[in-house]
Amino acid sequence: MSRFFSEKYRALEPYVPGEQPQNRQYVKLNTNESPYPPSPAVVQRVAEETARAQLYSDPDCTRLRRALAEMLDVGPENILPGNGSDEVLNFIFAAYGDDAHPFLFPNISYGFYPVFCAQNRVPFREIPLRPDFTVDPADYVGAAGHVVLANPNAPTGVALGRDVIEELVKSSPDRVVVIDEAYVDFGAESCVPLTKQYDNLLVVQTFSKSRSLAGARIGFAVGAAELIADLNTLRCSVNPYNLSRMALAAGEAAIADNAYYMQNCRRIAETRGQTAARLREMGFRVLPSRANFLFAASDRISGLALYQKLKERGVLVRHFEKPGIADFNRITIGSPEQMERFFQETEEILK
Amino acid sequence: MSRFFSEKYRALEPYVPGEQPQNRQYVKLNTNESPYPPSPAVVQRVAEETARAQLYSDPDCTRLRRALAEMLDVGPENILPGNGSDEVLNFIFAAYGDDAHPFLFPNISYGFYPVFCAQNRVPFREIPLRPDFTVDPADYVGAAGHVVLANPNAPTGVALGRDVIEELVKSSPDRVVVIDEAYVDFGAESCVPLTKQYDNLLVVQTFSKSRSLAGARIGFAVGAAELIADLNTLRCSVNPYNLSRMALAAGEAAIADNAYYMQNCRRIAETRGQTAARLREMGFRVLPSRANFLFAASDRISGLALYQKLKERGVLVRHFEKPGIADFNRITIGSPEQMERFFQETEEILK
Repeated sequence: MSRFFSEKYRALEPYVPGEQPQNRQYVKLNTNESPYPPSPAVVQRVAEETARAQLYSDPDCTRLRRALAEMLDVGPENILPGNGSDEVLNFIFAAYGDDAHPFLFPNISYGFYPVFCAQNRVPFREIPLRPDFTVDPADYVGAAGHVVLANPNAPTGVALGRDVIEELVKSSPDRVVVIDEAYVDFGAESCVPLTKQYDNLLVVQTFSKSRSLAGARIGFAVGAAELIADLNTLRCSVNPYNLSRMALAAGEAAIADNAYYMQNCRRIAETRGQTAARLREMGFRVLPSRANFLFAASDRISGLALYQKLKERGVLVRHFEKPGIADFNRITIGSPEQMERFFQETEEILK
Repeated sequence: MSRFFSEKYRALEPYVPGEQPQNRQYVKLNTNESPYPPSPAVVQRVAEETARAQLYSDPDCTRLRRALAEMLDVGPENILPGNGSDEVLNFIFAAYGDDAHPFLFPNISYGFYPVFCAQNRVPFREIPLRPDFTVDPADYVGAAGHVVLANPNAPTGVALGRDVIEELVKSSPDRVVVIDEAYVDFGAESCVPLTKQYDNLLVVQTFSKSRSLAGARIGFAVGAAELIADLNTLRCSVNPYNLSRMALAAGEAAIADNAYYMQNCRRIAETRGQTAARLREMGFRVLPSRANFLFAASDRISGLALYQKLKERGVLVRHFEKPGIADFNRITIGSPEQMERFFQETEEILK
């Protein structure tokens, strides 16, 4: 830290993403990436755009917004694209949070939410999950503040139904409810259709997981045109060209190839079912997941020890050494071959 | 704007970038893009990375930082990469500006600086250029506040020497001096070497102009490790994966092909000289430019009228309808063929 760093940021503790080791090849089951590569059309369109990358990208993201709008049955004015959904979430915390408007979210959820709040100097309150790791909507209905819920939640994978979220959105029209649907395509109900009825609902999605584009950085928010206009004001006050030509092309091509990606989601959901069954046979407690990962604990080994021993053996999972979840590891659903390797190593460790 | 938008942003007026029309093919001389495409190695490396874009990019940007450090003769810890230099500049205004630490910059400069300040709620003061559009360093030496200078300046193209900037940096070790070198490769002196001696100097560069990658969004800051650590704290509190696999690959490949890009810079400087001479023959006032654009005015036609008539004829230049520079247009240096077309249309208009 330099002696110049503004007082307002001196206590800021950045988010720590899952390890991305550059030196060794791991079976990577730690950052919820897809085991399946982007479709060939994505690679081809990106190469075409790179050949003309001397020209700026379209700052209005016109074609990507139009493609998303068509797929989601909303208007282009209802879409805010970002350089990954993290950027979009940051705009949301900035746009709506201030001393008079705190944010509420579960105490066990995406670990970036408190960092976004700290960075934007927005007060927040973490509300405990129930002992079974579910969200109790009543905790939010009665409390003052904007609400952010990851649905399915991370790192648990547990999802709420759309009807439950609709009740929450309706209960308090004077606050914004943000549903972070990073993992929705693996089996949960999307709240995108509700954005047409409620002007206090924002849904955030990403191309990182279900569309095999974590490395391309494409996320977006869906909501009422007025909310999207707020976020666009911030976007254009920071980085109007926040999506590159390559990101725009990758996003457009991925939507055109939607059937390929939805088929991959079904394969991953199938592997998730097999993985959960086998973990339970081995005595693991496995939370019911609608995401592309499982959250699992064994009373035969601590979460930390299993994580460490797997890493030594070349398999990465995600461990959070945090009260309430330290027994668990979050295991991304990879290909059947990757999961086989995970089970081989886990069985060896538990012997 | 929604009824939820925080009070702190309700008056925010976003930056308006140069037009990027998507419907018609223009001779685009309005956003200082390179007329020369990226090198073939860039296209190939990006395609390779896209094929594995299901995996996150390296959040530490290890290889890109190492390549930049080697080229610039600094350490990787002296480099902060961003999603375009706009993102980097935004981090800088955020990191060092607050009520007690305003920013100073010229009244005629990159129009985004006041927006970055407004977005970060950082006070600023615009200091008038001299009548010949040069910066008087004495105006800054005597004033309190961090300093941002585009060098060469935009939209004028006028540059300060490194020795002059060094005096400014030395004069006041208790403030940060930021030199925005977006256009430095077209003929100005870079202050990067000074970052090794002064811990209060940040230099910002971009791949958008001299490296033909405006559409790939790659910028970076160079400075003392402590300053870079500040900026990295902000980066990792907003978007730790701010550069995509494609951007990282494009940047690395462009540095490996540096000779190609430096050759293009020389070609552009040559075209700039020819363009300036011909404009002067036509009676234009042309400021001495070290950038890939010229700032020119004619007393035969208003700046706005020339811009509009050129646009009707399919040639885009950049006009700023702003006191002190409304007579001028900023004309990007394109290929010799593009400049020929610009002259044909301009001569017709002036007939």
